[in-house]
Amino acid sequence: MKILTSKPSIKNRFLEIRNKTEEICSSLEVDDFSVQPVAFVSPPKWHLGHTTWFFEQFVLSEYKENYECFSEDFSYYFNSYYNNVGERILRMNRGNMTRPTIKDVFNYRAYVNNQLSDFLKEEQSKNVLEVLEIGLQHEQQHQELLIYDIKYIFGHQPAFPALKTDINLKPESEEGFVSISEGVYKIGHSSNKFCFDNELGVHKTYLHNCKISKSLVTNGEYLQFIEDGGYQNFNLWHADGWDWLQVNNVKAPLYWHKTSSGYKQYTLNGLKSLDKNLPVSHISFYEAWAFAEWKDMRLPTEFEWEVASKHLKYGQLWEWTNSAYLPYPKFKKADGAIGEYNGKFMINTMVMRGASIATPTNHSRPTYRNFFSPDTKWQFSGIRLAK
Amino acid sequence: MKILTSKPSIKNRFLEIRNKTEEICSSLEVDDFSVQPVAFVSPPKWHLGHTTWFFEQFVLSEYKENYECFSEDFSYYFNSYYNNVGERILRMNRGNMTRPTIKDVFNYRAYVNNQLSDFLKEEQSKNVLEVLEIGLQHEQQHQELLIYDIKYIFGHQPAFPALKTDINLKPESEEGFVSISEGVYKIGHSSNKFCFDNELGVHKTYLHNCKISKSLVTNGEYLQFIEDGGYQNFNLWHADGWDWLQVNNVKAPLYWHKTSSGYKQYTLNGLKSLDKNLPVSHISFYEAWAFAEWKDMRLPTEFEWEVASKHLKYGQLWEWTNSAYLPYPKFKKADGAIGEYNGKFMINTMVMRGASIATPTNHSRPTYRNFFSPDTKWQFSGIRLAK
Amino acid sequence: MKILTSKPSIKNRFLEIRNKTEEICSSLEVDDFSVQPVAFVSPPKWHLGHTTWFFEQFVLSEYKENYECFSEDFSYYFNSYYNNVGERILRMNRGNMTRPTIKDVFNYRAYVNNQLSDFLKEEQSKNVLEVLEIGLQHEQQHQELLIYDIKYIFGHQPAFPALKTDINLKPESEEGFVSISEGVYKIGHSSNKFCFDNELGVHKTYLHNCKISKSLVTNGEYLQFIEDGGYQNFNLWHADGWDWLQVNNVKAPLYWHKTSSGYKQYTLNGLKSLDKNLPVSHISFYEAWAFAEWKDMRLPTEFEWEVASKHLKYGQLWEWTNSAYLPYPKFKKADGAIGEYNGKFMINTMVMRGASIATPTNHSRPTYRNFFSPDTKWQFSGIRLAK
Amino acid sequence: MKILTSKPSIKNRFLEIRNKTEEICSSLEVDDFSVQPVAFVSPPKWHLGHTTWFFEQFVLSEYKENYECFSEDFSYYFNSYYNNVGERILRMNRGNMTRPTIKDVFNYRAYVNNQLSDFLKEEQSKNVLEVLEIGLQHEQQHQELLIYDIKYIFGHQPAFPALKTDINLKPESEEGFVSISEGVYKIGHSSNKFCFDNELGVHKTYLHNCKISKSLVTNGEYLQFIEDGGYQNFNLWHADGWDWLQVNNVKAPLYWHKTSSGYKQYTLNGLKSLDKNLPVSHISFYEAWAFAEWKDMRLPTEFEWEVASKHLKYGQLWEWTNSAYLPYPKFKKADGAIGEYNGKFMINTMVMRGASIATPTNHSRPTYRNFFSPDTKWQFSGIRLAK
Repeated sequence: MKILTSKPSIKNRFLEIRNKTEEICSSLEVDDFSVQPVAFVSPPKWHLGHTTWFFEQFVLSEYKENYECFSEDFSYYFNSYYNNVGERILRMNRGNMTRPTIKDVFNYRAYVNNQLSDFLKEEQSKNVLEVLEIGLQHEQQHQELLIYDIKYIFGHQPAFPALKTDINLKPESEEGFVSISEGVYKIGHSSNKFCFDNELGVHKTYLHNCKISKSLVTNGEYLQFIEDGGYQNFNLWHADGWDWLQVNNVKAPLYWHKTSSGYKQYTLNGLKSLDKNLPVSHISFYEAWAFAEWKDMRLPTEFEWEVASKHLKYGQLWEWTNSAYLPYPKFKKADGAIGEYNGKFMINTMVMRGASIATPTNHSRPTYRNFFSPDTKWQFSGIRLAK
Repeated sequence: MKILTSKPSIKNRFLEIRNKTEEICSSLEVDDFSVQPVAFVSPPKWHLGHTTWFFEQFVLSEYKENYECFSEDFSYYFNSYYNNVGERILRMNRGNMTRPTIKDVFNYRAYVNNQLSDFLKEEQSKNVLEVLEIGLQHEQQHQELLIYDIKYIFGHQPAFPALKTDINLKPESEEGFVSISEGVYKIGHSSNKFCFDNELGVHKTYLHNCKISKSLVTNGEYLQFIEDGGYQNFNLWHADGWDWLQVNNVKAPLYWHKTSSGYKQYTLNGLKSLDKNLPVSHISFYEAWAFAEWKDMRLPTEFEWEVASKHLKYGQLWEWTNSAYLPYPKFKKADGAIGEYNGKFMINTMVMRGASIATPTNHSRPTYRNFFSPDTKWQFSGIRLAK
Repeated sequence: MKILTSKPSIKNRFLEIRNKTEEICSSLEVDDFSVQPVAFVSPPKWHLGHTTWFFEQFVLSEYKENYECFSEDFSYYFNSYYNNVGERILRMNRGNMTRPTIKDVFNYRAYVNNQLSDFLKEEQSKNVLEVLEIGLQHEQQHQELLIYDIKYIFGHQPAFPALKTDINLKPESEEGFVSISEGVYKIGHSSNKFCFDNELGVHKTYLHNCKISKSLVTNGEYLQFIEDGGYQNFNLWHADGWDWLQVNNVKAPLYWHKTSSGYKQYTLNGLKSLDKNLPVSHISFYEAWAFAEWKDMRLPTEFEWEVASKHLKYGQLWEWTNSAYLPYPKFKKADGAIGEYNGKFMINTMVMRGASIATPTNHSRPTYRNFFSPDTKWQFSGIRLAK
Repeated sequence: MKILTSKPSIKNRFLEIRNKTEEICSSLEVDDFSVQPVAFVSPPKWHLGHTTWFFEQFVLSEYKENYECFSEDFSYYFNSYYNNVGERILRMNRGNMTRPTIKDVFNYRAYVNNQLSDFLKEEQSKNVLEVLEIGLQHEQQHQELLIYDIKYIFGHQPAFPALKTDINLKPESEEGFVSISEGVYKIGHSSNKFCFDNELGVHKTYLHNCKISKSLVTNGEYLQFIEDGGYQNFNLWHADGWDWLQVNNVKAPLYWHKTSSGYKQYTLNGLKSLDKNLPVSHISFYEAWAFAEWKDMRLPTEFEWEVASKHLKYGQLWEWTNSAYLPYPKFKKADGAIGEYNGKFMINTMVMRGASIATPTNHSRPTYRNFFSPDTKWQFSGIRLAK
């Protein structure tokens, strides 16, 4: 991974990002930190501990002399999916762990923050700084997941509590389409700034003529799709999408609630009347694809998106592409635990491009390859059409 | 239901029982109150709220003039299985509700306690006192369930936290058997003290000669069963028990952990070496029955047990009987919600008799009919043999 | 088991019963013999082979000198649940075995019939005759199961094929109730004719006053229950019954089909308009119990039924009792494989008494204890009320 | 779809292909035709009927004047997944349909063959010939599926019956790698012969330097992977692959059986000792990918494969590529039922290229895009490596 780290700032940047994570949780009650309503949602407590464990495991234990672990037990609880680092609790049991308490976990964070700040007082090798940088990027990814998961936890309770936050969607005003001309284009990360291994290396791809919409699809447009019977017309759906629809009885985006006075939508600020001018959010790939079929258009590929990105105002919602998440031509997994970061997910997932209002500032970039399985919709997802 | 309630004491008794419930939870952390590791375990927070809701729903809302509910939302959350009282969250989703917070629930308890104390300042009708009594009995039942559930929650975490409590099993020293002679016996509750509807009315049953052990089976005896291959010998098991064994990979009582230095057992005071002299606990009906087969004996029926009870020292563990939970000859469900209390569970469950160290003082009696499905083992269950 | 077997007739009786089994299948196509639409239904081919294997395994292999098995492989396929006799295919995979073919199985039957006829030319010991008798009773039980299973297989196909048979329900004309007076009664099998181990031994039971209906509940009465919202009123149902209803979306007896012109019912003679005068059939214990609740009556216990039986005309449908299937006071499982016949099912099942139009002549008797789990309804089951 | 059909031959070609299907089944017993051991395997009877229904539905009913359907009921049973053509039985219930019998189905085939032969006596429009051609291609696809399904049905029975057939794998003798140079290549079907819509239209793609093996991986090489702990090393697997492995307890290719004398392999000619020189077959995408990781190589993309294909001897086993099955740039689903043929499967599946020994002669071509989900292995699949 390519990394640019100016020595003076790294400690500040570390603390800034670490604080940001806790800030996201600042309005939570102790009661909110431990639950796990479904397997793919992790308890907020777990995110706070896991991001800390990452620094302890891969930086402090590895490189700091005489480092003493905060607690041996925490590794078992806070390892996510790094088989190389040993046993861990089953993902779906995270929500059953009442200990360590959230107070313990904040103590753990403080301890690791102090130890790492101390460690960064001295100049560290490029190798250490690289792992540290991954830890920071990793914590930023979990900041976004934290928001998804808190929204899911709150959005599935009768009280519909609100998270005090200024994360809000806005209407998009751009009209029309960006055009791409047929030809060979370069794809992949080329600057000397940080990127993940899945964005490397720069390589050529051949694109055909296409047009990509300048704005995301709105709630209003999506409502038309619903009212036109979009969820009942199998011709618009993938076979797997259609099955998923029936099994899960899906009839609208996540967080939409049909009431006698029209649709309401759960937002981080509570339950609101549906705003037709806002971009439609929390839709699965299956729904995005079916909507595009209904519009007689299609979703862009991730390569079209990357090429078009310099002409687009994006960043409100991650955008489904019709590209499967697969390795770039020269992709090679890193050895050991870090190698588990990306490569092993390159099956059964679709690429999302862009960023969302829940993405930390400066975390994303035009070459960033996010990925989710096609039935997920708790992430901040949206639709951009192509033709 | 027959009820004896001396007016002067009812308010005190009410507050005493209410306080006892909170006392059980006194050493819990806030984090411990909300989780639900399996569907049959409820979060401690839920027990605290549900027992309160029972008084609010069936006493205050019904009988206290101008009573104002603490919160309309709480009914949805804290109703357990009373279909007659309206919609409620699915049992398995109780652990996903982070709101109301535990602080809210303690406020709810205080509010209802005050309102009810106030209400009891005036003399109340027999009808009201009867419902109140059921509420108290009901809260005592939940005190016991609270202990089961806390033990389950703690006993399924790698840290094995302890609940500060003096609930401990002791060795049983009685030897030999109690004999019952063939003949007609009276069964059922006959005093003028409280009992549940399922213990009424007194009726005759014909018993044959039998002998019932004076002591419960010990951990040491059960260990012999295990070491003799009891869990591998299908001839000892019911067909359903054998299937249950395979599917759940059961090899020992709940909370037993095989280690390189012998079995350890999780207790409310933490993980301990197995004490062979203590009664074996946390076994399912299937296991109790298989153990009896192995011993070439059998489990008593609930009628044999009731007749023998005046000669037995019991009360450490609920005892599996080989009686299905079925109505007594003149049993009739009460109308409305209270009628849902017992009758609708009279299928697929087996009767347990006695009491356990987790049972509140004075809550049980010789005619008490507890019942659980034959695969459950998180309750404080034990084995008494008959022949 | 007590057995009366007159030597001269045993061979004839054997061949008569064996032929009867094949006669039941006489109108089946080859295609009909191998399928298994649900785990609890066995392919007809399997019944034909399994009953044959029983004689081969427990009579010929055991007692006939130099007996050569027809094929070693058949034991693996045709063993049902006798763990003592070795490995066998999983029950739910029976329908995947296309080999042995049905032709092979008829050859198998002929071979075993010949071998056994030959064996019976000589006088055999009491011990052999007892096992033989069990084999015959066992085959008769499978004759009845064959009819259940064929009906299930045919009744779940769009073509609704008919089995050529004279098995038909008739209206019951008796009115009123049989009365039983309080007192001690003898229960259990006492004659010197054959019975199963679960009917032994004769013992006393105490009954209270009750009345038992002389006729089974009719389709017409059951239709009133449906039209009165019986399936929507949770107060009428066991908790487990209510859950079963929701999960399986049950709204009527098995084989009833709601059409624009009223209910139709699949019978062994094809799809017919519902005849309101016939006894209601193919209902689960849950439904029988709920119906009784709705009628403000109850189901009889198996002891009440046995005492009343000499005054009843029964035999069209097996009758659900409100007795769990449990051992009689002196019940003891036989050793070895035969011991698996009854005892291991004495949990989670309810007793049915009587007989059905699918029961072979002379197979049942007043002390006969049939048993099924409370959610099953493919057996020929009906409702008799008590109060 | 582009189609070349010389009028004089079309009728002969139709009858030839229709006969070939029946020839595949010529050694089956009647008993073999109806079973469905898992949802993804269809009963042979169903294939015979479904391919016939395709001609009846899309050719005869549509275009032949006064055509009378053989039976209205058959459409319900033999429709596969064409939602546009109406209701059908659930896929997993195909194996429960004993009627129509196999005899009925052969009559159905004869009837449709006659009707269509008659229809083809007169000259038909290009439109009709196109649909007819799809029907023939479709029947050829089902010929291959028939072989997969028969193998699965036979290979999961203790008797391991053999299908009389000359379908056999041979060792591959080519050594070394084919090289592809970086540059723009044309992909997709361009001749005027038949192809499916998913192979159209010709478009450019940019490839980087790579080398592709001239031979498939052998059983011997795969055995080394197993013996080297390949199935125990999570670093070699996709996350989903690893989960799949654990859940299904996968330890070898399908049809391999570990015995005391080494591996045996079920083949269409029965159970044989494993031949190390033959290509490894019946492996899932997950296994192919893990094997490539272990070899420190990779799977080719479908585009690399297509470019390399003119230098390869292929055709023994379908070859997994590391390309997700996605639409080509100008792909557009056809309207109506025919549009359901390919497009709706373009998610969660991976492309396989080549052909297998079970593929009908002349059915495949270098641009042919076969596709399966990554966990399937009952198809005739193999591994070709790239680097």
